[in-house]
Amino acid sequence: MSEAVETLEGWYALHDFRKMDWQAWKSASSSEREAAEAELAAMLKNWREVEVSKQGSTAFYAIVGQKADFVLMHLRETLEELEELETAYNKSAIAKYTLPVYSYVSIVELSSYMAAPGVDPMSVPQIVERLKPELPKSRHICFYPMNKRRDGNDNWYMLSLEERKNMMRSHGMIGRSYAGKVKQIITGSVGFDLWEWGVTLFADDALQFKKLVYEMRFDEVSARFGEFGDFYVGNLMTDAKLKAMLQV
Amino acid sequence: MSEAVETLEGWYALHDFRKMDWQAWKSASSSEREAAEAELAAMLKNWREVEVSKQGSTAFYAIVGQKADFVLMHLRETLEELEELETAYNKSAIAKYTLPVYSYVSIVELSSYMAAPGVDPMSVPQIVERLKPELPKSRHICFYPMNKRRDGNDNWYMLSLEERKNMMRSHGMIGRSYAGKVKQIITGSVGFDLWEWGVTLFADDALQFKKLVYEMRFDEVSARFGEFGDFYVGNLMTDAKLKAMLQV
Amino acid sequence: MSEAVETLEGWYALHDFRKMDWQAWKSASSSEREAAEAELAAMLKNWREVEVSKQGSTAFYAIVGQKADFVLMHLRETLEELEELETAYNKSAIAKYTLPVYSYVSIVELSSYMAAPGVDPMSVPQIVERLKPELPKSRHICFYPMNKRRDGNDNWYMLSLEERKNMMRSHGMIGRSYAGKVKQIITGSVGFDLWEWGVTLFADDALQFKKLVYEMRFDEVSARFGEFGDFYVGNLMTDAKLKAMLQV
Amino acid sequence: MSEAVETLEGWYALHDFRKMDWQAWKSASSSEREAAEAELAAMLKNWREVEVSKQGSTAFYAIVGQKADFVLMHLRETLEELEELETAYNKSAIAKYTLPVYSYVSIVELSSYMAAPGVDPMSVPQIVERLKPELPKSRHICFYPMNKRRDGNDNWYMLSLEERKNMMRSHGMIGRSYAGKVKQIITGSVGFDLWEWGVTLFADDALQFKKLVYEMRFDEVSARFGEFGDFYVGNLMTDAKLKAMLQV
Amino acid sequence: MSEAVETLEGWYALHDFRKMDWQAWKSASSSEREAAEAELAAMLKNWREVEVSKQGSTAFYAIVGQKADFVLMHLRETLEELEELETAYNKSAIAKYTLPVYSYVSIVELSSYMAAPGVDPMSVPQIVERLKPELPKSRHICFYPMNKRRDGNDNWYMLSLEERKNMMRSHGMIGRSYAGKVKQIITGSVGFDLWEWGVTLFADDALQFKKLVYEMRFDEVSARFGEFGDFYVGNLMTDAKLKAMLQV
Repeated sequence: MSEAVETLEGWYALHDFRKMDWQAWKSASSSEREAAEAELAAMLKNWREVEVSKQGSTAFYAIVGQKADFVLMHLRETLEELEELETAYNKSAIAKYTLPVYSYVSIVELSSYMAAPGVDPMSVPQIVERLKPELPKSRHICFYPMNKRRDGNDNWYMLSLEERKNMMRSHGMIGRSYAGKVKQIITGSVGFDLWEWGVTLFADDALQFKKLVYEMRFDEVSARFGEFGDFYVGNLMTDAKLKAMLQV
Repeated sequence: MSEAVETLEGWYALHDFRKMDWQAWKSASSSEREAAEAELAAMLKNWREVEVSKQGSTAFYAIVGQKADFVLMHLRETLEELEELETAYNKSAIAKYTLPVYSYVSIVELSSYMAAPGVDPMSVPQIVERLKPELPKSRHICFYPMNKRRDGNDNWYMLSLEERKNMMRSHGMIGRSYAGKVKQIITGSVGFDLWEWGVTLFADDALQFKKLVYEMRFDEVSARFGEFGDFYVGNLMTDAKLKAMLQV
Repeated sequence: MSEAVETLEGWYALHDFRKMDWQAWKSASSSEREAAEAELAAMLKNWREVEVSKQGSTAFYAIVGQKADFVLMHLRETLEELEELETAYNKSAIAKYTLPVYSYVSIVELSSYMAAPGVDPMSVPQIVERLKPELPKSRHICFYPMNKRRDGNDNWYMLSLEERKNMMRSHGMIGRSYAGKVKQIITGSVGFDLWEWGVTLFADDALQFKKLVYEMRFDEVSARFGEFGDFYVGNLMTDAKLKAMLQV
Repeated sequence: MSEAVETLEGWYALHDFRKMDWQAWKSASSSEREAAEAELAAMLKNWREVEVSKQGSTAFYAIVGQKADFVLMHLRETLEELEELETAYNKSAIAKYTLPVYSYVSIVELSSYMAAPGVDPMSVPQIVERLKPELPKSRHICFYPMNKRRDGNDNWYMLSLEERKNMMRSHGMIGRSYAGKVKQIITGSVGFDLWEWGVTLFADDALQFKKLVYEMRFDEVSARFGEFGDFYVGNLMTDAKLKAMLQV
Repeated sequence: MSEAVETLEGWYALHDFRKMDWQAWKSASSSEREAAEAELAAMLKNWREVEVSKQGSTAFYAIVGQKADFVLMHLRETLEELEELETAYNKSAIAKYTLPVYSYVSIVELSSYMAAPGVDPMSVPQIVERLKPELPKSRHICFYPMNKRRDGNDNWYMLSLEERKNMMRSHGMIGRSYAGKVKQIITGSVGFDLWEWGVTLFADDALQFKKLVYEMRFDEVSARFGEFGDFYVGNLMTDAKLKAMLQV
């Protein structure tokens, strides 16, 4: 038996992808649309207040392509809060005009692969802040789920802790070389959803998502051990963009 | 030919995952909603009476994320009872407002991998109780189906009974280290459903699901031989939560 | 090139899985429901007459879980009869309230792996009867499709006839040890449907499905070479059960 | 780099699988049904005229099981003709009562694996006729798509031309042993659809599909290198069968 | 860790596949259809103006088979433009009669595998032009997504840069031998969509798609390392074809 690495967990995460039901939206009366927009605005305001009071955080992005029209990524202290938040959305007027298409349940996670030996990770303020983060307002988001492979000789979970540490160190160095360009939030989903991790990236230049993920793919951790789900890329849903999107 | 391990079976299990049809629910008149809620309450009361009379058990949890809004996990003596129970639900008023999304048919199972040699497992009261259990009322549930892999050199069913016993012993020790934190119910589904087993975990702290499943993944049984389906995680559906969820 | 084993074929088989559209059924008027039930009863009577005249056989079982509400397994002399029977069902009144969910096209098959050398299998009355069988009226049914694996060193079709014969002999011995408990009908579907075979089991004690399939999984034929699709398990649809199921 | 074999191409092919929307068909007025049947009859007549003038060919078969109710297999000189033909169908009255369920785009293909050395395949009249064939009116059809495997040591495209030729020769001998029983049309779909080839078989005795495909599966080309999609089997849609099918 | 090759990126790409909802289209009044066609014509005119002003490019092709009725392939400077363009389409009148079926998000990419050593690729005018191309108006289009395999010994990302360069050179030579027959646009989608690359081919003779992709499949890069998604093939949507298609 190989030794599991220690992990630290912070807020629970719900990525909630929705499509607009454009025909329903266009068929609604303008008063119905105004009421739905007002209720959505109230929810957004409420989520911002939660963020300000450091009880959670919510990111709102338009998704490019047919997979979804937008994603709401919520961070909260408990699974109950996430489920209640989702139910409240489902009962709202705007939900009548949107369709659920994909969701992901996970928890913000830091592994101690990169911790300096003998240092308590919780003593590092940067780490504590990363466990309960305020989500960035970057221009772009990228989300994808992933596993570590367990296939014949390419079995991550059969490697020694030392081997895994060495590989993760090199992997982390690539990530650090993108500091200032890409912000990365890792959420663990073992026991919560289909894949083992979710990766959420934020950047002002979407091309940096491609550069980072592509460069990492040549790193042994990804090349031999990474299995990737679908990728979702999007643009920050500013108030102006939301207004324009809902304008018919 | 390798030797199959003895298994003991108890109650049959049906995990029944449903989504709310929120638009239908919101469009219903309040008298329709009241009637549906009353009928659901009567079914829940009935299932509790079955539980009290030790003829079965039912767990009711809200599911987090878009995969489902809730799961009803039923344990009963026969497949006929499960099918009739499901049909009764389908004919009920609340079924008009919910959509079936996933189900799993299995039977509570104990393998004798961990039995002390020379001991009749049925003489261990703890075992008998585990075959026909009253499902916990923990704050959280986690369900996932799984197989033992049969792939090239990683073929569980080609191992000797001794090899499998040794690995399962180590595996069981991880499980036991979570005693008091996570309660685990294994159900066998060979011949009944898509995967070979279902695993249902109960805990008051949902993070323990992740800790347990992640730690086990480094154990050779999971690392080399475990294949996992989708994971569903949820929150206990108390009367108060149910009332709040259905309030529109 | 390896040598193909001789096979004997009997009646063509159509497994036809359907779900009830419960809301449509409940919304129908009682005269519509009565007419649909009467038409179904007439079809069932007709299929029984076909069975009595030994021109085919039909089994009717309720399925447990959300995958289907019932299966009709039809055996007939030709593909045309199966297709016409399916079309007749689709045009019937009850079809308005049921949804097709899965079907399987195959033909009753016996391989000569187990035939004693020098014996013409068609001279064995038991074999002839198994090619055009009257389907049992056991309390339970289990259906699953399967392939023989062709993967690297685990390639069934690259083995010699002798190797395959030896393995199938051991496999058959497990099957025979369940005589009186489980009746097994193998149907071949190479050239007809997605998998190479369908397996339909009948038993009065559903637990025997699990015992049999699990024990076989440790046999080299299944352990190294078996690939399995989804499993469907059900309960005999007696007239009383049908009446109860359709009662709303 | 291995050497690609020469291929010869003839007519483009569209396999167009459809289901009846039986409830819509039964709900239509008899004048609507008559108009739809008349328009379908006119399309069939038109396609037969194309066939007579040797500008293409169309086969029409009822499919057994729930995957489809019928298939129209069209051969035409260009992709534009196939797309226009499909659009014309979609606009027809009968399309209102049928649902698209699966299609396949390919082109009739002959490889020169089996050509005698030094012989120009186009000088063989049998070959030219096979590239632009009139589709048979056999009692049964069987369609399946397939790939040649590229997996570890079982990589067809890494074999030498000589190795592939030898294997295809043995493969072709099985095919030839079914001459008079099964007629086979190979269509290439590399660059056109999900799989590399489509195989369409015609026979008066459907059991010969199973015999042929099963015997070939023990041949090294299929055993090690064949990957197969779903199989569709059907019965010739004579005018009488069509009339009976549409009669409600 | 292997060394990643440098890539150059140009315009972002959205492949937007849609099906006609033929029943809705046929049920619309002629004034509704005229308004929808006029709005589509205005969008097409607008996209052509973007193309003329070299701010992007749009290709419009009818797709053969049931997967889609047409594809709009848009190239634009930013992800925001693509998303706004998609939203504008979704709000248009024609969207009421079309259904989204598949989309792909990527970015025009050139790798420097084939660059002569010591030459700055951006100094090659042909390369710059290929990063922000005007899409061809060839008679046919072919689109498919692909990955480089990471499987056991066939792991592209574990090869040295030198090995990859050598293989890509041979691969590129096949491509070049189709110069004048097939125009190829590679778009990278690592970090943006499910696969690593999209390949869009244009040709006046659709058979050349098959010839090219088939010949490449014997090249080691494809044979050992290529993983391919679904293929879509289509015909140029001229104004005349569009008019004919929408005529009911």
